[in-house]
Amino acid sequence: MVSKNQIKLINGLHLKKNRLANQLFLAEGVKVIQELLQSNFVLEHLYATEESFNSFSITNKSVVSEVEMKKITALSTPSSCLAVFQIPKQEQLINAGLFVALDDIRDPGNLGTIIRLCDWFGIEQIVCSKETVDLYNPKVVQATMGSIARVKLNYLDLEKFISETTLPIFGTFMDGSNIYEEELPNEGIIILGNEANGISKSIEKLVKNRIAIPRFGNLQKTESLNVATATAIVLSEFRRSSSGK
Amino acid sequence: MVSKNQIKLINGLHLKKNRLANQLFLAEGVKVIQELLQSNFVLEHLYATEESFNSFSITNKSVVSEVEMKKITALSTPSSCLAVFQIPKQEQLINAGLFVALDDIRDPGNLGTIIRLCDWFGIEQIVCSKETVDLYNPKVVQATMGSIARVKLNYLDLEKFISETTLPIFGTFMDGSNIYEEELPNEGIIILGNEANGISKSIEKLVKNRIAIPRFGNLQKTESLNVATATAIVLSEFRRSSSGK
Repeated sequence: MVSKNQIKLINGLHLKKNRLANQLFLAEGVKVIQELLQSNFVLEHLYATEESFNSFSITNKSVVSEVEMKKITALSTPSSCLAVFQIPKQEQLINAGLFVALDDIRDPGNLGTIIRLCDWFGIEQIVCSKETVDLYNPKVVQATMGSIARVKLNYLDLEKFISETTLPIFGTFMDGSNIYEEELPNEGIIILGNEANGISKSIEKLVKNRIAIPRFGNLQKTESLNVATATAIVLSEFRRSSSGK
Repeated sequence: MVSKNQIKLINGLHLKKNRLANQLFLAEGVKVIQELLQSNFVLEHLYATEESFNSFSITNKSVVSEVEMKKITALSTPSSCLAVFQIPKQEQLINAGLFVALDDIRDPGNLGTIIRLCDWFGIEQIVCSKETVDLYNPKVVQATMGSIARVKLNYLDLEKFISETTLPIFGTFMDGSNIYEEELPNEGIIILGNEANGISKSIEKLVKNRIAIPRFGNLQKTESLNVATATAIVLSEFRRSSSGK
């Protein structure tokens, strides 16, 4: 059972301004919700259909019908459960290790995939420009597949952050040096640019290390890789290089 | 101007059975259509709004209004142009070089991204199980960003094809050997599995070379990478290895 007021609150959370005002966000699907419950996220309430209701050994939960679930889901294909969590405070950054910096990533699926990649490659800190898509957008939460519980993400003035850091700064550009031939450190900031425009001019000026993923084949007409697949290759190369392989 | 019959034909092509019956498919967006026009694809007709009508120096085109475009597009956000192309005959495979084999990839975005990655890494042949999503699905065509014009894709009995090939067969598994430590050849078949179930049991039996992308970090709870990002890393490793880097 879900009341009219609850439906109104939950649907409001589909939008960023209401997430900010209420400091709450939505997570959907058994796997994502289980991962958040096992970490430090604070649950407000869980709504689940009969299908997954007994998968959760918590008290603040309600059983809902599939019709009710359709009324509250933010996904085109509703899952069997939806949870309302509190948005945690931004954690302090530690000025060490490998960072990923996002310069206006706009697509929720891309942000979710990048967070999942960071989790896989043991990168625990992501910094984002303020124009980057909201971490608590329901599609981002979904695409992280639970990795959101393990990777710290901070929104900040990216140009200021990068101009003040003492860590080496890397960015991918078509004219960069072949990433396969570089010795890549286990500390630094890897900048990933916007889907349409790449790394912005003001940030580009601060990039000391311009790297490139080589193209192969004879035709070589592909203009670019998408940002999520480029991130996969770049992070793999950094970890391979610093593991001495 | 687009007639009622044309609207009916075009909307029919959103579905695979009608694409097969008519041997026609849709492409949307200036970049994708330009790339197809520059290759061997045969255009039936192009529909474009004022915005992009003059970008195409061809005769078989009609100007349409934005309202008409909304009636024919297969995308949630319509582009300024939509083209109807003939489906070309499946080309003969050449039993050499590096292949990618898709074992029931179901998501159109994933197939499109994999085709784009193959194009980047100079892999010109993809073989797919018959259950793999249709190459001419409008969302696949869109996600390839034009790479569909340069990569050959064949649907076939994948188990039969793999059991008969003389090329070495590779697949990624959690228990595989560290891909960073392998010498990877410039000929072979790289099998990519279904999004939910991975490589099917009957195909797995035929895989002689089990490889894995190592995980990093302390927590190591991420269960898997998605198939498109895993493909990016694996193809990059094959090309890096065979280029001697």
